[in-house]
Amino acid sequence: MREVAIIGAYETVHGNHKDRTLRDLVTEAGNGAIKDSGIDRKEIQAVYVGNYAGNEFNAQNTMGSYAANLLGLGDRPAIRTEGACASGGIAMRQGMLAVASGLYDTVLVLGVEKMNGLDPETTMEIVARGQDQDVEGGYCISGPSGFALNAIRHMHEFGTTKEMLATVAEKNYFHGSLNPFAHKQKEISFNNIMRARMVTTPFGFHDVSLVTDASAAVVITTKEKAKSIRKDYVVVKGSGIGGDYFNVALKKDSVSFPASVQAATEAFKMAGVERKDIDVLECHDCFTITEIINIEDLGFVEKGKGGQFTKDGHTRLGGKLPVNTSGGLKAKGHPVGATGVGQVVEMTFQLRDQSEKRQVANARTALTHVLGGPGAVSIVHILQRGE
Amino acid sequence: MREVAIIGAYETVHGNHKDRTLRDLVTEAGNGAIKDSGIDRKEIQAVYVGNYAGNEFNAQNTMGSYAANLLGLGDRPAIRTEGACASGGIAMRQGMLAVASGLYDTVLVLGVEKMNGLDPETTMEIVARGQDQDVEGGYCISGPSGFALNAIRHMHEFGTTKEMLATVAEKNYFHGSLNPFAHKQKEISFNNIMRARMVTTPFGFHDVSLVTDASAAVVITTKEKAKSIRKDYVVVKGSGIGGDYFNVALKKDSVSFPASVQAATEAFKMAGVERKDIDVLECHDCFTITEIINIEDLGFVEKGKGGQFTKDGHTRLGGKLPVNTSGGLKAKGHPVGATGVGQVVEMTFQLRDQSEKRQVANARTALTHVLGGPGAVSIVHILQRGE
Repeated sequence: MREVAIIGAYETVHGNHKDRTLRDLVTEAGNGAIKDSGIDRKEIQAVYVGNYAGNEFNAQNTMGSYAANLLGLGDRPAIRTEGACASGGIAMRQGMLAVASGLYDTVLVLGVEKMNGLDPETTMEIVARGQDQDVEGGYCISGPSGFALNAIRHMHEFGTTKEMLATVAEKNYFHGSLNPFAHKQKEISFNNIMRARMVTTPFGFHDVSLVTDASAAVVITTKEKAKSIRKDYVVVKGSGIGGDYFNVALKKDSVSFPASVQAATEAFKMAGVERKDIDVLECHDCFTITEIINIEDLGFVEKGKGGQFTKDGHTRLGGKLPVNTSGGLKAKGHPVGATGVGQVVEMTFQLRDQSEKRQVANARTALTHVLGGPGAVSIVHILQRGE
Repeated sequence: MREVAIIGAYETVHGNHKDRTLRDLVTEAGNGAIKDSGIDRKEIQAVYVGNYAGNEFNAQNTMGSYAANLLGLGDRPAIRTEGACASGGIAMRQGMLAVASGLYDTVLVLGVEKMNGLDPETTMEIVARGQDQDVEGGYCISGPSGFALNAIRHMHEFGTTKEMLATVAEKNYFHGSLNPFAHKQKEISFNNIMRARMVTTPFGFHDVSLVTDASAAVVITTKEKAKSIRKDYVVVKGSGIGGDYFNVALKKDSVSFPASVQAATEAFKMAGVERKDIDVLECHDCFTITEIINIEDLGFVEKGKGGQFTKDGHTRLGGKLPVNTSGGLKAKGHPVGATGVGQVVEMTFQLRDQSEKRQVANARTALTHVLGGPGAVSIVHILQRGE
């Protein structure tokens, strides 16, 4: 496997875009990433697209060919990948592996989801199809109720508190307030988070991620070629994937997501860096508890200590391990198929020193992490400034 | 890239399975392929699943994790690929590349679609989402009407006739009558095909492929390992992918699918074999005209001569280039996400000399071809008996 690097990155503003179509989002992100890379689009040899359910949200399936066509790349091979909330991360991994293995020299990876526009109940049904509908759908095991089981068990075993969950939300809203690409760019006070209406015990309204429209894209090429194009290229040092049982009932453990552990183990091994080398990371905070469990599973904090670590302010901008400087799924938003690619865009901006108010000083090495379905598939990437 | 081989292959009987669930199909095909391989499922390191629209047909998305879980492989990384009617071919290619590049030693590739059960109009709407809905949906460019444009132009330019189209259907029904896995296992006379009710000019009812429920799966490993497992392993000699414009309006040509040409060129180059070496092939006869165009695009017949070549009987069992011995999409059926994997299963059976009544004598080298969307993505694989 040869080393690969990101030479172009772009994402649309995240939001509930009543006035913007699926086409608008895809063309803005794709063209933006190509323009940012400075290369001629003719050099792009293939397109990888992460999308969860365009056929249901937008009556449009086959988003690989759809996106390639819109971007003037209609005659290039294009495929779509799907793995629930990890769909964009999978596209990033497949595109990265295609260049690393020598299949192509330069590819475009794009993620997109335009989720708003249907009635909320239908939207939630579509999202719930990322879990086992025959077996667990009937028991109302959906995203919120499934992850609530993890939260309750984590609280029981380790003394994690509702206040700790609220700290995750408060911090991510704060980060979002500094990010011009975020869906919610406004701070919410700790007290307001704590007294928000309940969704499902122990989650209140602010413990839950957003239903967001957005697209994000990156251009990936060989490290060799990247060097000749720009000084601030970003090397994809490591990539990992992990899997776990699709049925919540089959899981061995409620306080850890083994898919994340496996993905991180693979990515760190490939990258040849250590946890202490990571300066900033984006992880999958679909619910506040998930961020706490993630920083444990990814190996940054001992199991059970994620809540306290968060409460102590270490994951806040300025802390020793800033997490979700974009605002995360909580404030930047969670456009399902775009999320994994948007994380890579955010970390690319950090490593290029372009994150302005939310910049982590001297960020050199970064990590991205997504988790799809009921913790069933996870993708981790480790990125590093090219020098 | 190292050489890879198929050590296990299985497909369910194709049909309108009112009494069989999505779970039934996935478990039968997946377990069948693993059993056929003779290995312990613990050796399977990752799962690649082709599926077009399970979220709409079956209220079940995220079919990678879903299938892995059902097959006792829930803790393995699993991803789903989608590219309309090429979805299964893409899964095959991603799985094959994963082993070829050294990422994994052994993987399972599975395709599935359970399409029947909804009202036919809804089913056709779901299928039409594999084309550009914003731009061409409004002009009623769907599968039948889009490919009808190709048929009419091919007739105009080359004198291809409705009789030649009927010959494709008659032959594929005949092949299907010999295949115990086919959806339609009954011959239909040439005269009945010719006088069938019209769908869209020039297609009658029998020029159109079937709406089918099925699953198919293969186990892929290194050639090295395959040798130690069974004598009749099948080497995946070549794999190719091609892309073309998603909008019918943007296409340069109506009598050829450039995606197929590109995929075949890549696959033959990688395989190091020539057209004359192919003993039998499965290609994407979503409509009768498509098979005629395919055998031209794949390089077996000069452009424009596919109809006459078919009329002369060369593509029939016993002819010099038997095409779609399974019955093809016309008679074996077209369970969208399963189709590309089912083709590989059929060719594996041929190369293992297990195709009984439809066996091509001494078949040594075979080809599979799928085409997704409005000719927007194509996958070709070249398979060879391992000795």
